[in-house]
Amino acid sequence: MRLAVVPGDGIGPEVIGEALKVLSEVAPQIESTQYDLGAARWHSTGELLPESVLTELREHDAILLGAVGDPSVPSGILERGLLLRLRFELDHHVNLRPARLYPGVRGPLSAQAEIDLVVVREGTEGPYAGTGGLLRKDTPQEIATEVSINTAFGVERVVRDAFTRASNRPRRKLTLVHKTNVLTHAGSLWSRVVEEVSLEHPEVAVDYQHVDSTTIHLVMDPSRYDVIVTDNLFGDILTDLAAAVTGGIGLAASGNLDVSRANPSMFEPVHGSAPDIAGKGIADPTAAVLSVALMLDHLGEPELARRIEAAVAFDLATRDHQNPGGTSAVGDRLAALVSSAAGTRSLA
Amino acid sequence: MRLAVVPGDGIGPEVIGEALKVLSEVAPQIESTQYDLGAARWHSTGELLPESVLTELREHDAILLGAVGDPSVPSGILERGLLLRLRFELDHHVNLRPARLYPGVRGPLSAQAEIDLVVVREGTEGPYAGTGGLLRKDTPQEIATEVSINTAFGVERVVRDAFTRASNRPRRKLTLVHKTNVLTHAGSLWSRVVEEVSLEHPEVAVDYQHVDSTTIHLVMDPSRYDVIVTDNLFGDILTDLAAAVTGGIGLAASGNLDVSRANPSMFEPVHGSAPDIAGKGIADPTAAVLSVALMLDHLGEPELARRIEAAVAFDLATRDHQNPGGTSAVGDRLAALVSSAAGTRSLA
Ligand SMILES: CC(C)[C@H](C(=O)O)[C@@H](O)C(=O)O
Ligand SMILES: CC(C)[C@H](C(=O)O)[C@@H](O)C(=O)O
Repeated sequence: MRLAVVPGDGIGPEVIGEALKVLSEVAPQIESTQYDLGAARWHSTGELLPESVLTELREHDAILLGAVGDPSVPSGILERGLLLRLRFELDHHVNLRPARLYPGVRGPLSAQAEIDLVVVREGTEGPYAGTGGLLRKDTPQEIATEVSINTAFGVERVVRDAFTRASNRPRRKLTLVHKTNVLTHAGSLWSRVVEEVSLEHPEVAVDYQHVDSTTIHLVMDPSRYDVIVTDNLFGDILTDLAAAVTGGIGLAASGNLDVSRANPSMFEPVHGSAPDIAGKGIADPTAAVLSVALMLDHLGEPELARRIEAAVAFDLATRDHQNPGGTSAVGDRLAALVSSAAGTRSLA
Repeated sequence: MRLAVVPGDGIGPEVIGEALKVLSEVAPQIESTQYDLGAARWHSTGELLPESVLTELREHDAILLGAVGDPSVPSGILERGLLLRLRFELDHHVNLRPARLYPGVRGPLSAQAEIDLVVVREGTEGPYAGTGGLLRKDTPQEIATEVSINTAFGVERVVRDAFTRASNRPRRKLTLVHKTNVLTHAGSLWSRVVEEVSLEHPEVAVDYQHVDSTTIHLVMDPSRYDVIVTDNLFGDILTDLAAAVTGGIGLAASGNLDVSRANPSMFEPVHGSAPDIAGKGIADPTAAVLSVALMLDHLGEPELARRIEAAVAFDLATRDHQNPGGTSAVGDRLAALVSSAAGTRSLA
């Protein structure tokens, strides 16, 4: 098993260090190679993702990414040239983002409902396609377009994945989120595909909700959701909100999956590089650690994944949330838990 | 002063009835004419917005709209053919959506911060332009596009309006919300225009935030916002969330403004037609009543607007939130308050 590690910018290297610490406890046999990509490389060489690096990355079984982005780099350069380029080149069509309120964690909502949902976000098309342009740039007549491209091929594969996941979860519910009453073209494609695939999954209860009202329900009644399937941009927005209501972006993990397995999948915390707290050793590595669990699931090691999740659950239930300890203290605790009987016992 | 009233579907006529009751207390001289548009008309005649009606609507000083939409009408028909058609034909480029947590109202957040923000949502372009289409419809090769169109003309006028509003508010803060790191074309236009207009408003503090992290801050720290300026789709999403954190969509008012005053502006509650509770007399008319206050502000009657807001504030501070009373009971209370000394006194 070969793992490519891209620590990236800001707190990326800090949280990835802890994630690897935990990983090496449960799967010491995994070999990892670090790749230096991100703001520093761009500043010193102008490179974002050289072809040779992309070729090497393809030869791995998975990629673990910290975070990319730095205020010294103009907006969009690293995002489009590195992060989104990886997602698109490696055909990461299923962007998997679970949101679960762990016992012991107080979210911002006063009603402490059980929240355990997963957003299956399309990852390779929609408004992220990057098509669009500028006409008469920098003039009072400027026109800027952004074209959302949605294909039956692209929608169907992510919808199928979402149905399979819903089918394997206890509640078996799937909610399509879109804005079909305004984005009628893309909306009709998404609706048609969901309707068609639902015929193959009579065991899954399906409903539909507009993206705007979904934000209301995510704060008023988040327990109603089980699996949400949605497009790239709506998924981006809703998963930040879902992370917030389940205790914050410090706990939110994600997987960028090529479910065909033709390319390595990539795992990353949902949070960014957080330059304001970088280098201080205070970033919470939990999201990166949970991303490792998603990776192990994808690599066919569900027992190892559950062990990590159990350790995180134990730590979150017992930690002093005012004073959780620094980045490496949390990593040390989680590493100790996964290797201890306690970690294993809390699996039950 | 001539007012066109479009009660619309579902709870629309119920809440509009109460809004007019309150309006007639503060401004009995306003003449109003009702227009029958919405699901029922579409079912019986196939008409959405006949040219002759549009021409008559243009001859009014303002439009008050209840809600449009009904499950019996396919998604998008009434939205694109009636509601959005009105907003586009009447050039409602400033979609004004205040969100304020009134004393006495418990929102869903456990931290009861002061929230008093206003979203200035672009209303006539962006992803709502309706451009886009389908290729190879209903086949496995189908492609659906949605084109967001952003013009310097359109962005500048709404950004200018937002700066003026920020300048007139005590905190003088303006936040541009977009997704400039992904939607780089539209993002660069919005950023450039905000930067340019900010030079004319050195008194306004400006910042920028991505739409995904804005959802986090709206639940973690909503008091940070004063004026938010954003595009049509982001504004749609964020104003539902802002309404939720300030006590729900039953209180959220909006104005669709042509600030040039070439066309009548239109005022409507943010909520929809809520077919599930229609006809039961239980819908909260407060959002419709607050929309009347926005209308009076726009028509140059700020004192009358403040009187309505004061009545709403008084009612929200004193009402039994478990048992607020039915639609007409709330309307009666608000009507009594605006005409009473109490209503006037609470202005202070
Ligand atoms: C950094 C940015 C390009 C990215 C996205 O928009 O997908 C991030 O917000 C995320 O959710 O992973
Ligand atoms: C009904 C719909 C077309 C509308 C919109 O998307 O603008 C509504 O959600 C709103 O916010 O007024």
